[in-house]
Amino acid sequence: MKNITIDDFYEAKETVNNIIKKTPLIYSDFYSQEYMADVFLKPENLQRTGAFKIRGAYNKIVKLSDQEKEKGLIASSAGNHAQGVALAAKACGVKAVIVMPSNTPLIKVEATKKYGADVVLSGECYDDAFNEAKRLQDIYGYTFIHPFDDDDIILGQGTIGIEILEELPEADIIIVPIGGGGLISGVAMAAKFIKPDIEIIGVEPQGAQTLRSSIKSNHIVELKKVDTIAEGVAVKRSGMKTFEYVKKYVDRIVTVNDVNIMEAFLLVAEKEKIIAENAGVLSLAALRKIDVKGKKVVSLISGGNIDVVTISELISRGLVVRGRVFCFSVELSDTPGQLQMIASILSDVGANIIQLDHNQFKTVDRFKRVHLEVTCETNGKSHVAQIKRALKNKGYDVKVVY
Amino acid sequence: MKNITIDDFYEAKETVNNIIKKTPLIYSDFYSQEYMADVFLKPENLQRTGAFKIRGAYNKIVKLSDQEKEKGLIASSAGNHAQGVALAAKACGVKAVIVMPSNTPLIKVEATKKYGADVVLSGECYDDAFNEAKRLQDIYGYTFIHPFDDDDIILGQGTIGIEILEELPEADIIIVPIGGGGLISGVAMAAKFIKPDIEIIGVEPQGAQTLRSSIKSNHIVELKKVDTIAEGVAVKRSGMKTFEYVKKYVDRIVTVNDVNIMEAFLLVAEKEKIIAENAGVLSLAALRKIDVKGKKVVSLISGGNIDVVTISELISRGLVVRGRVFCFSVELSDTPGQLQMIASILSDVGANIIQLDHNQFKTVDRFKRVHLEVTCETNGKSHVAQIKRALKNKGYDVKVVY
Repeated sequence: MKNITIDDFYEAKETVNNIIKKTPLIYSDFYSQEYMADVFLKPENLQRTGAFKIRGAYNKIVKLSDQEKEKGLIASSAGNHAQGVALAAKACGVKAVIVMPSNTPLIKVEATKKYGADVVLSGECYDDAFNEAKRLQDIYGYTFIHPFDDDDIILGQGTIGIEILEELPEADIIIVPIGGGGLISGVAMAAKFIKPDIEIIGVEPQGAQTLRSSIKSNHIVELKKVDTIAEGVAVKRSGMKTFEYVKKYVDRIVTVNDVNIMEAFLLVAEKEKIIAENAGVLSLAALRKIDVKGKKVVSLISGGNIDVVTISELISRGLVVRGRVFCFSVELSDTPGQLQMIASILSDVGANIIQLDHNQFKTVDRFKRVHLEVTCETNGKSHVAQIKRALKNKGYDVKVVY
Repeated sequence: MKNITIDDFYEAKETVNNIIKKTPLIYSDFYSQEYMADVFLKPENLQRTGAFKIRGAYNKIVKLSDQEKEKGLIASSAGNHAQGVALAAKACGVKAVIVMPSNTPLIKVEATKKYGADVVLSGECYDDAFNEAKRLQDIYGYTFIHPFDDDDIILGQGTIGIEILEELPEADIIIVPIGGGGLISGVAMAAKFIKPDIEIIGVEPQGAQTLRSSIKSNHIVELKKVDTIAEGVAVKRSGMKTFEYVKKYVDRIVTVNDVNIMEAFLLVAEKEKIIAENAGVLSLAALRKIDVKGKKVVSLISGGNIDVVTISELISRGLVVRGRVFCFSVELSDTPGQLQMIASILSDVGANIIQLDHNQFKTVDRFKRVHLEVTCETNGKSHVAQIKRALKNKGYDVKVVY
């Protein structure tokens, strides 16, 4: 392909406008106050299929030749790319086969099928599904739709950069999650073509620093393993194109850990009333790592496809981290009145007991003492500290369970 | 007050535009497909303070006399009205006292304080807090800000109706949750003044049919008790003004039950990626009760203030209702191999065990049999039925726990 220009992005914008919703920037009172800046969210979790992927997929598929369209296309994905390709293919009247790992949650398989794609379940992980997709491509002559390393895909994702600057021309910084690098490549290029002095900051999880490691080494690095709760950006190896684009157009890449991500998930749900997936909130989790004071900042939320069971787990874990739930164990002598004593101490400090586990068999010294595990609702970390002190003052040896 | 005209609403709109966010209509692929209509959400959960209440409160407070502003104002609320009044008062530089029931969740108390209001905790329920507010009003000469039965409040809420019709002039139906009736009064009046043939449908929980009962009886009925998970609309008695406005401008009122509400909460989170409170999704839960086929419908989501613990509980309960979690108990003879047999039956039908509770003491016939409680992850109601059949075929007497 020839060198990409801003005209290519405007052309892509006209194309994708046939299928996407224009997601509105949302001003965040909470984050603006928290970081003394003007923070806006670009909520691509509210996009059709629940993520930005539809933009690139549609821009790619529209441009295929009639012959390619007739043969159909294939993609491998366990996530948002699957749904994006499926809907884009349906809109173009093209047959799509999506290979997903066998352990893909039923809900994602069904969402993909609902958009009209044929789903093939194969292998244990993304790489297995990718290999199967390549095998089917060879046999049936399908066109393979890469999730990120493709200029037409990148042009499609870049339309987000145009939308942001059309709505907020005075933006100083755009913060973007990085997986394979397709989204940030497009957004960075489009935004810098329009406004060269805008700052583009990428975010990776600490456990999947794909682009950051590659940029540092100045060649593409393949990570041996990735370990993050943001499974949507758990990519081992960046693309060749995305590596070059990120090197050239992205100002810097910061990292966040799993606790940062979990907190950002909860905060955006509580304060902004929107559901984002873990990969999607990288750009909010990163606000604490960047000096944004006095700036106009756009945090791009890339997607919102997260199942309700995972939401429930994040909430439970989040409550512990915030000191809103405290679980501890104590050993009690096996005599009457002991439980009453604990209950009275907790009541005095205003801790509400949620669960009790009282077990003779768990204790080491089993014939004299009883193991008691208590879970209570608390009002924050200082409250937890107060409870621990109150128990210690009465001579109990408190062990923190979580 | 003189008769309200559309000009009053436009004036209110100019006023509230100084403080609110204009919430964009969101087209819902999911609900549109589900009901063969064009369904749009008006997401006032994304409004500042997480609910529409800021509109009416600000429109009211701006208009107070200098003397009233100097003395300060008072309101009673455990919910969205508290935060709306607090922020509106702060924006107008007026002191606000909010009386909340003593059992109000800490998180709501703190949100209200964060907007700069003085919070007084008093009594066990809303009525107690209301009485205390009236008492303080008498002593200190505060102006009482009613949550709904006030023309300036109603004008403020009605600005939502103008926004909807400006963005979607071809709307056929607007569906609105009803608590005390302030929101629907404003929206219905403004919308019908602009487009007389638009249909306005109100929604109440089955356990709090305040306006529906009153309209039916043609006088204001006070409910003896209210019982609904949508605590934001659990109002025993409508206002005098709102009763008259609803009677005149609202076409009809439908009701939904707690399961409908819970399902709507989960669906809007999963499909639209937004968090709405239970009262807020009444207008989505009601879609199944209304023939909307082929119509352009706007479901107004009134608010999103729900704490994460409640979200977690709704998800757990929702999974059971959908047949995604199944908990049953069986009695086993206390001989080796019994647990292995159950595990093998469940494995054959593809049910994943989440939790086991194996207890000798729970059984009736305690010396011969053991009580086993099993919770498993399942793929829907037909899968649950299949598991029950498989266990029965092997001679087990299955009791459904939930």
